[in-house]
Amino acid sequence: MAKYQKVKGTQDFFEKSILKLRYLENTMRRIAKNYGYNEIKTPIFEHTDVFVRIGDDSDIVTKEMYTFLDKGNRSITLRPEGTAAVVRSYLENKLYAKTSPMKLFYFGPMFRYERPQAGRYREFHQFGVEVFGKSTPLLDCDVIISANQIFQELGIKNYHLKINTIGDNESRKLYSEKLVEYFEEHINHLCSDCKRRINKNPLRILDCKVDGNNPIIKNAPKIHDFLNQESKDYFSEVLSILDYYQVDYIVDENLVRGLDYYTDLVFEFIIESNDELDGLAFCGGGKYANLVESFGGMDIPGIGYAIGVERLLSIVDSQDGWNDKIENDIDVLIISLDKLSKLKALEIAYLLRLHNIPTEIDYEHYTMKHQFKLADKLNPKFLIIIGEEERKNNIVSIKDNETKVEETISQEKIISYLKGKLL
Amino acid sequence: MAKYQKVKGTQDFFEKSILKLRYLENTMRRIAKNYGYNEIKTPIFEHTDVFVRIGDDSDIVTKEMYTFLDKGNRSITLRPEGTAAVVRSYLENKLYAKTSPMKLFYFGPMFRYERPQAGRYREFHQFGVEVFGKSTPLLDCDVIISANQIFQELGIKNYHLKINTIGDNESRKLYSEKLVEYFEEHINHLCSDCKRRINKNPLRILDCKVDGNNPIIKNAPKIHDFLNQESKDYFSEVLSILDYYQVDYIVDENLVRGLDYYTDLVFEFIIESNDELDGLAFCGGGKYANLVESFGGMDIPGIGYAIGVERLLSIVDSQDGWNDKIENDIDVLIISLDKLSKLKALEIAYLLRLHNIPTEIDYEHYTMKHQFKLADKLNPKFLIIIGEEERKNNIVSIKDNETKVEETISQEKIISYLKGKLL
Repeated sequence: MAKYQKVKGTQDFFEKSILKLRYLENTMRRIAKNYGYNEIKTPIFEHTDVFVRIGDDSDIVTKEMYTFLDKGNRSITLRPEGTAAVVRSYLENKLYAKTSPMKLFYFGPMFRYERPQAGRYREFHQFGVEVFGKSTPLLDCDVIISANQIFQELGIKNYHLKINTIGDNESRKLYSEKLVEYFEEHINHLCSDCKRRINKNPLRILDCKVDGNNPIIKNAPKIHDFLNQESKDYFSEVLSILDYYQVDYIVDENLVRGLDYYTDLVFEFIIESNDELDGLAFCGGGKYANLVESFGGMDIPGIGYAIGVERLLSIVDSQDGWNDKIENDIDVLIISLDKLSKLKALEIAYLLRLHNIPTEIDYEHYTMKHQFKLADKLNPKFLIIIGEEERKNNIVSIKDNETKVEETISQEKIISYLKGKLL
Repeated sequence: MAKYQKVKGTQDFFEKSILKLRYLENTMRRIAKNYGYNEIKTPIFEHTDVFVRIGDDSDIVTKEMYTFLDKGNRSITLRPEGTAAVVRSYLENKLYAKTSPMKLFYFGPMFRYERPQAGRYREFHQFGVEVFGKSTPLLDCDVIISANQIFQELGIKNYHLKINTIGDNESRKLYSEKLVEYFEEHINHLCSDCKRRINKNPLRILDCKVDGNNPIIKNAPKIHDFLNQESKDYFSEVLSILDYYQVDYIVDENLVRGLDYYTDLVFEFIIESNDELDGLAFCGGGKYANLVESFGGMDIPGIGYAIGVERLLSIVDSQDGWNDKIENDIDVLIISLDKLSKLKALEIAYLLRLHNIPTEIDYEHYTMKHQFKLADKLNPKFLIIIGEEERKNNIVSIKDNETKVEETISQEKIISYLKGKLL
């Protein structure tokens, strides 16, 4: 066993795994850009207060944050999710004074001290979008469609979109009161966390992780019976637009999401699978009417979602969906048979690399045998061979490593020869 | 002032600044790939022990690390540099059993609790490469050339490469003894940090940050007088290869680098400038013969460098070198003049985005006036206009936003029309 090991719940990405991660990242970046989102990148850590705002009674904040004092005695926290810091940045950098809606995306590591499980890490990655400044059903649907587009382009199969409304502020206030009444009647049947939540945030009881199958929770009053007309109309317009664009969804009246800041529309993308991934939410989001204001900003609406990148990666793995997306072969290996030829080899390599043709040489050996071993490991598309004879005649041998066809060409023609073959 | 602010010494990247960061990242990634490097991504934090290995007397380890206890009472540290974690990962994942040399690159945030200054942040980014398993002058030169290639492609002006050898283990042992003798004679003229360093790591005194102009330090014995023949030969072969490839360099006998793990070759890239950037090292690296072994691994040589990305960004800023590298305009804005047209507009947007044409719509307004305001902000290359008339006739108006030429085309032809114009 190695003397030093990575910290429990973290992982190294290299070889295939880094290619998978970058393929997902690049796909999400490209689609976000196509949809008019601009990137924002906030620091890895924030003042702890920033995250407490997302729900001072949530599991994330109370149990799972990496919080510590820095050398200046500030309480800082490694970000457990993306939205809070983006809101902080949006306000601090006065982005509200620019384009509205302000459409932002982010990609980066997040940190939660949870029990590591298959596909769940203490350092994990999220891609997310946040839109500030407008609230229209068309915008909401476009946000959902952009997430869906990512999963379509990745070729994800057997997933569905769950959607719900938890009502506007007025509706939710009425509903909360009813929930408190109801749960107080059944308080003895609730877990200790939920008992505490009754007066603080009764909606969160519906999302109880300890006791999700409790009939008391299942039979609780439903938000849909307490929605005011405006909330109802808004939600049905969202659904009718999704219908127009033929986006499939399931309305799930129990969907509330785990963070305090959501209002109105909430949604999740869920995978169906024959393995332990079945039922996993790999993307979740919703609207947040009050979040910007709770950060001391103006009354600015928002909507966003986050995709769990490691979860998505596990899903593509389990659906065997990578195909040729994660190749990283180099194009050319230059084999050189004496010391002067090796200098020439690096010179040719320099030129090929300048033309964006990934090229490798053997830095050490002069025998064919050693260098063909390297060729076996690297599997280049072409081999260039240069020895004393070739060097003197200003030529090289060039061999297609698949067809094994070998040709002799002048050194000046290497670039044009390879560009023709590699395109 | 915003109610919540980013932590001192950290920064938000958005608008132009994120485009600059990504441009640098993408250039470095592309060149690394061309040079045959594969990416590795280690976690943001490691067990503290991993970093103590890079120099238990260095400023980084003694003063600047973000170290804390996690909820499992582990001492963990946000990585202050890239090499230590890559070595840990190389050993833990048994990468030595694969290709040799193993050529790796990384890009990501690092953390040091330093006094924030212009261009110096507590969270900053490094791009770096590490090569394990071989030690040849040709490989060393190729590593240096790859860094140089990055600065060439970025168009950096007025920089130079400083290079030195600090000798192999045998040479350095002899030199260290002479340094101890010399500094002990002049101990009263050294700063308190250096007094402490005399017996622990006398070479580090040469790199004193407190008192770099101290004549005692300047007149200290030079490593070049204590190099054994092997070290001398190796270094002159490196220099002659750099000469062969016409890479300019300055041999600086005082260059030692600030970390304990370096042996033999060390180098830095330094900027010359009329402003506060003058003399800044924006890339540094060298060989490390003993580092892998000190992590409990075998006797495996290594060489690497790291580029300070924020420093490089400041340099390109100060040399006004961005030109058109950081454009992020969207290609198309679709203007819609009634509710049904807006649904159609999003449908067209969906199609354009599917073809990787960045497209935006106005989610809210139906008037020309409002939507032309958005056009002014977004500055798209084309405007597509759709109202009741266009919708009924299955056409759109399409306007080149630069030439102002407007044409009417059928909706089926939008993609081919734009693909022709945008290529």
